[in-house]
Parts: sequence; structure tokens; C-alpha cells
Amino acid sequence: MNKPRPKACILVIGNEILSGRTQDKNVNYIAKKLTELGVDLELVIMIPDVISVIVKRLNEVRKVYDFVFTTGGIGSTHDDLTIEAVAKAFNKNLKTSPQVFDLLEEYYKGRGAEFNQARQRMAVFPEGAELIDNSITKAPGCYIENVFVFAGVPDIMRAMFDAIAHKIKGGDKIISRTYEAKIAENEIADKLAIIAKKHPKVDIGSYPQIVDKEFAVAIVCRSDNENLLDLIEPQIKELLLL
Amino acid sequence: MNKPRPKACILVIGNEILSGRTQDKNVNYIAKKLTELGVDLELVIMIPDVISVIVKRLNEVRKVYDFVFTTGGIGSTHDDLTIEAVAKAFNKNLKTSPQVFDLLEEYYKGRGAEFNQARQRMAVFPEGAELIDNSITKAPGCYIENVFVFAGVPDIMRAMFDAIAHKIKGGDKIISRTYEAKIAENEIADKLAIIAKKHPKVDIGSYPQIVDKEFAVAIVCRSDNENLLDLIEPQIKELLLL
Repeated sequence: MNKPRPKACILVIGNEILSGRTQDKNVNYIAKKLTELGVDLELVIMIPDVISVIVKRLNEVRKVYDFVFTTGGIGSTHDDLTIEAVAKAFNKNLKTSPQVFDLLEEYYKGRGAEFNQARQRMAVFPEGAELIDNSITKAPGCYIENVFVFAGVPDIMRAMFDAIAHKIKGGDKIISRTYEAKIAENEIADKLAIIAKKHPKVDIGSYPQIVDKEFAVAIVCRSDNENLLDLIEPQIKELLLL
Repeated sequence: MNKPRPKACILVIGNEILSGRTQDKNVNYIAKKLTELGVDLELVIMIPDVISVIVKRLNEVRKVYDFVFTTGGIGSTHDDLTIEAVAKAFNKNLKTSPQVFDLLEEYYKGRGAEFNQARQRMAVFPEGAELIDNSITKAPGCYIENVFVFAGVPDIMRAMFDAIAHKIKGGDKIISRTYEAKIAENEIADKLAIIAKKHPKVDIGSYPQIVDKEFAVAIVCRSDNENLLDLIEPQIKELLLL
């Protein structure tokens, strides 16, 4: 029996992404993980650190997608505005978590550092939010309903994703088979289109590449039904002379 | 006198981005170029190769932003649907460009390759669209009104961007100064917040990093007014012990 796949959206929050200072690497990590979990990532939106923009986008997507992941803007500095925006979107107050306050106080004292006002800010969450462990720098992320709020630093984001991955209940897994050949994709495109038309339940992607100044192509066949992939495989291999 | 900066949006089109198969590199390239040109990139949206989704998003953003750039989905294969979607969004017919048809016919014949139906598809554009040169593989991109339609392969996308860069009239350039130190950002966050509050016209970003398992931070000050950056510089340097 088919288990439908939930739909997900990522909100990437950060001026540094939009100015080009930083190359985002979090989308790709989350996208791969969601594919493994049987969740369809359908939308990614990248926006600046502006509370009104975050609130608007978050409220647009959290009602449409089963899971929403945000990355960025949850540190201790003045330009970290995501927590405030999430609280506003859910119409919740901000509240210091005594548990996190103690955790961070101990962590910083243990390192001989001051537990200053900025660091205390990292113990503040929207009321009703649950915490997400951060095994790297302790300061947690949080989730509220279907919205998971992650850090932007890739190492920390990954630790947070892995900490909540068991909560992401996916549907049927997508199986993906990739066939690569040193052929220009438009050499085989006509025949590939015919195969694709005959097999509408297999998502066939054609990805042209330039490898050592030579044309190459990767054909990716994706389906939750392995039998369909078995059926199509000889046709793709013949086409690519594999 | 101030020259206001136009606003831009990028639509990244491609199932391979959302499945995690491909790490997008085009947003970062365009973002940097726009910053250099004095254009504010305010929004990036990543969507699948689905005509109805592309049309919907394109029509949402092309009326709001001065420039819209799309990447991906303009090749010769069955999953390349961007040109069709752009035509639909603008309510235009698709039309073969005789000029491009001849160009491609000559190019493929010169390589001893068949100018097949799939390749002929790359000569089709929305009526009224202007062409964008592709110095890499010849098949052009196009633009119509404020929407620039680029390939997804990074080398080709870059060639196309560079071919139309002179059409992007920006406003005052943003000047950016970066200060890096091996200090945890939350060590200095309180004082940085005070500086930021005193200088609301300078956009001060704080970007924590983990370098060789040590905390580091990059403070980025951005403004179109160099005098303001000069004013703030000694305060930031003092804060970072530079």
C-alpha cells in the first residue's frame, strides 16, 4: 500500500546569503536527508534578516507544508532575529528557558568565559517551543508545531537536523538510479522523451555536464516503485550505450 | 545624490536541487555580481520543473522586483520546461528563431552531429523575447521585459550573466568591509549591539565560524556611504582587538 510522502519547505534566513558573502550549504544537506526519509522538498525560500519578512513567509508556508525548516539567525548577536520572528508568527511570547539558562551558564563558566547578556539571549524561545539539542556549541534550536528552527552554521545545523530526524515521519522512499555517459544530452533527448512519455510514473531527469571540456550527461530515474525502475533500466542503458 | 538600488529576485528551477542531487552554485554567483552592480537581491525561490509552479511564481515576482533571473530548465530534454513556462506567464506564443535555428544547425553540422528535433527545440523562445548569447554551447538564453532566463549549468549560466550584465543598471554601490578575529561572536555581541544601534545606516553582520575547532567571527559592515564605514571602523577594530 502506498504511504504518501509529506511535503517540506526550507526558509534560509540571512543577509550574507543574499549579498553573496556566503555560499549556502544547508539546503543541499537537508534536501538529501529529506529524500532519504521519504519527504518531498517542494520549496526553498531565501530571505534577509528582517523580522517582518520572516514572519510573512513563515506564515505563508507553515500552513501549506507538512514540515518547515528554517536555517540561520538564531545566534546571540543583534542581527539574529529568527527566534523573535518565529514567536511573532505563532503569536507567542518570548520566554527564557531556565533549563537552557543553566546549561549555558555552566558551559560558559566551565570555559572561563562570562555568561553575558548576549549569551543569555540564546536561552530565550517562543513560549511552547520544544528544544533541539546542539551537540556542538550547546545553545539549542527549537521547534514549534511543524516548524523546525536551526542554526545557520553548517556543522551546528547538521547536528540539529540529526537530533530531530527521528521526528520526521516520511512516506514511501524514493529510489533513485543514476546513469552517466559521455554523450551530449541533446544527442539522446528525442529518444529519452519517448521513454519518459511511456513511463509517466518514473521521474526522469537529464542533467548535462561539461567534464574536461567534453559533454556528458547524467540520467536520473526516480520512483517509489522499484519494478518500474527495473522495467526502464534496459531502455536507458541502451540509449546511453552502457 | 542618492541613486536608489533596484531589487532583484532569483528563481532556481530544478528537481535536482530539491532532491539534493545537485548543490546550487548559481545563486552565489549572481548574488555577488548584483552586489557589485548596486542591485539588492531580496529573494531567492527554488522550485521544481513543473510548468504551473514556474508560471505562478514567475507571475508573483516579476511585478514586484526590478529584475528577475531564472536558472535551469532551458535545455533540449523533456524535463526542460522553463521556456514554455515563461511564455505562458507572459501570455506569449512560442516561436522558432530562424537566427538561432541557423546558428545551431551550423554549429552541430560543424561538429558532425545531427541537428535533431531536441536540438531544434533550443531555437524556440517566447514571442518578443530577446536573445542572450551563450559563448559555451551556443544555444542562447533569453530575456523578456525584466525576466532573464539563464541555463542551469554553472559555466553556461555565468557566460549568460556576463553577456547581459551591462543591461543591469544598479544604484549606489554597497561598500563592504570585513573584519575577522578568533573570538567567539557572543563574547562581543553586547558591545557590537551598542555600536549597531548607534549606526543604524550601516548594516552590521556578525558571522560566527568554527575554524580548526576554534570559534572565530567575521564582522561585516555594509553601507553605500564610505564616511560612515570610516567612522565605525576604529570601534569595530577595538572590539575585535585588531
